Amino acid sequence: MTFAAIPLTMHFDKPLLLKGGGVLSAYQLQYETYGRLNQNRDNAVLICHALNASHHVAGYYEGQAKSTGWWDNMIGPGKPVDTERFFVIGVNNPGSCFGSTGPMHTDPHTQQVYGADFPVVTVEDWVNAQARLLDAMGITQLAAVMGGSLGGMQALSWSLQYPQRVRHAVVIASAPNLNAENIAFNEVARRAITTDPDFHGGHFYAHGVVPKRGLRIARMLGHITYLSDDVMNTKFGRALQSGEVFKYSTQEIEFQIESYLRYQGDKFSEYFDANTYLLITRALDYFDPAAQYQGNLTKALAQACAKFLLVSFTTDWRFAPARSREIVQALVANQRDVSYAEIDAPHGHDAFLMDDRRYLKLVRSYFAGIQTQSVEVA
Amino acid sequence: MTFAAIPLTMHFDKPLLLKGGGVLSAYQLQYETYGRLNQNRDNAVLICHALNASHHVAGYYEGQAKSTGWWDNMIGPGKPVDTERFFVIGVNNPGSCFGSTGPMHTDPHTQQVYGADFPVVTVEDWVNAQARLLDAMGITQLAAVMGGSLGGMQALSWSLQYPQRVRHAVVIASAPNLNAENIAFNEVARRAITTDPDFHGGHFYAHGVVPKRGLRIARMLGHITYLSDDVMNTKFGRALQSGEVFKYSTQEIEFQIESYLRYQGDKFSEYFDANTYLLITRALDYFDPAAQYQGNLTKALAQACAKFLLVSFTTDWRFAPARSREIVQALVANQRDVSYAEIDAPHGHDAFLMDDRRYLKLVRSYFAGIQTQSVEVA
Repeated sequence: MTFAAIPLTMHFDKPLLLKGGGVLSAYQLQYETYGRLNQNRDNAVLICHALNASHHVAGYYEGQAKSTGWWDNMIGPGKPVDTERFFVIGVNNPGSCFGSTGPMHTDPHTQQVYGADFPVVTVEDWVNAQARLLDAMGITQLAAVMGGSLGGMQALSWSLQYPQRVRHAVVIASAPNLNAENIAFNEVARRAITTDPDFHGGHFYAHGVVPKRGLRIARMLGHITYLSDDVMNTKFGRALQSGEVFKYSTQEIEFQIESYLRYQGDKFSEYFDANTYLLITRALDYFDPAAQYQGNLTKALAQACAKFLLVSFTTDWRFAPARSREIVQALVANQRDVSYAEIDAPHGHDAFLMDDRRYLKLVRSYFAGIQTQSVEVA
Repeated sequence: MTFAAIPLTMHFDKPLLLKGGGVLSAYQLQYETYGRLNQNRDNAVLICHALNASHHVAGYYEGQAKSTGWWDNMIGPGKPVDTERFFVIGVNNPGSCFGSTGPMHTDPHTQQVYGADFPVVTVEDWVNAQARLLDAMGITQLAAVMGGSLGGMQALSWSLQYPQRVRHAVVIASAPNLNAENIAFNEVARRAITTDPDFHGGHFYAHGVVPKRGLRIARMLGHITYLSDDVMNTKFGRALQSGEVFKYSTQEIEFQIESYLRYQGDKFSEYFDANTYLLITRALDYFDPAAQYQGNLTKALAQACAKFLLVSFTTDWRFAPARSREIVQALVANQRDVSYAEIDAPHGHDAFLMDDRRYLKLVRSYFAGIQTQSVEVA
């Protein structure tokens, strides 16, 4: 059972000072809410999105086919994050391309489209922007903040930037920072985009073009890293796209996996913004709460006082279980209340979006244990 | 101790019929030899190269700095494959870009540069071309054929195409075929090249340009897959390229790993041919000796009668140890003489080119056990 969702917009005129030195003097956030805020205002759950997702977390848009939110299997009435009990908020981050202020918007100072001049944003900046949205909604403390992958980094950062405002942090398929290989993949994707002749140094909007070649390559590559070796072999293996014999061609499609990746790349290049891709991969690269503690994650997490649920997936080689365990160990060293599950799932990094029975049951059970005033009182 | 190597060229006028249906009506092979062929002509060792290597396996070129062969740590006087005992042959495969007939050469039929019209070549075709070179040299049987990665596929294919001509097959860091993820990475690299506006459908030579953007991306991506996660973390980690603080930039280099990859990509794009990249990745994709036996590798390897050494490396995720074990198990099922070593090495796929003491000692010991007439008799 799902429900109709309605995207909302909130404008902010107070400048947002950014960690990288830039500033967003005025901006808007696109967001959605599901369920009802209770009288105590203590049942809000903030969902943070990853690279290519948005504020449209659950439900569908009236009259639009295939408009189901990206985490609709997790969030909704009677679902693991039950909107009959919780007031759930999905918000699009600044710099993204789904409605919140981003590189395709006009800089109020220059009256020019931002393009490559959009200021660099970080996980910490996003958390600050999200906190302002909560302020405006009159929510002092979240029942939980939750995210997967880059969204998990935001959930972790919430527990450090606003320790008193988070009762539970749910950090799924995430990591305390990117390792060299993660950064390397991001860099290849960025170079594919920035060396596309249609990129024009990031000011392609003015030229009426889109660096689709680069976006396609970025997405194809990203997609490989979201899947496990196993699931790719099961789903595609060496199956041919057509017929039973090779065409013997260097440029035509031979294997189904090639067709699948090209399709994913083409689709992505039709809707995703190239500057957003650069900004968000950089936010991933930069996140590293332990950096200011000489790499000591235990010290970095000492200020967190939320309760934690961490989840990782055995076949996730992008954000491997070992990376989640680093966070768990640092929390345990700080004697924090932390639950950790390593789910044996075949789907690689993408598992956090999948219908894995044990995973959904686990999250359901965790949220059932989060205390709030009954929503019926409101 | 190393030695001066001299590249040689041999012309062939008898057409080479190719598995994919094409034909090379006349062609040349670039090759090198080290050591002396003995009177019995039973001490020849053929070295097969991988994606971006050549016939220049060992030694250096007189008067050229940094011209050491790509497997010079393995092959030479007193080295694991000892050129005091063995007559070692390195040969560049057709379709490559290091001297043997390739896409940048002129098609004798059309008098046009081949470009994208160079016929698709396979591992089996390369083995046939290599066999003709041996014919011309009067070598009926190889003491050993040896290769790593794609070179290992050629060594394996030798044992199947010319079972009587190979006494030992040394197959290192290889696989019986590519899996879906391997093909996927190849496809991303190919798309980066073919969608580069300077590719011109593969006929870029006529336009006086080179699709360097695509080649750079292909190489950066390839490079990530040659290294292990561990070695990247050890070598680069999150170290910054300059200074101790971020520049906060989406396009400038921040991390050392980015600088390293860009450098590798730039260097590669200066010397490697784009059509060759397509051809060689396709040869990788197509190789699958079990395909004509409904995927039954044991049946496919039944015709091999060589003795085998297989070596894999624990951190190689491109051609993981499990893939070598598939070959070992199929050979054992056929009751063939097979030695297998899984080397605990940190370097990933690139380990097969590295100075790992145990690995080099193992190969040394294996070759010491290969019987030949004493070379001194010649």
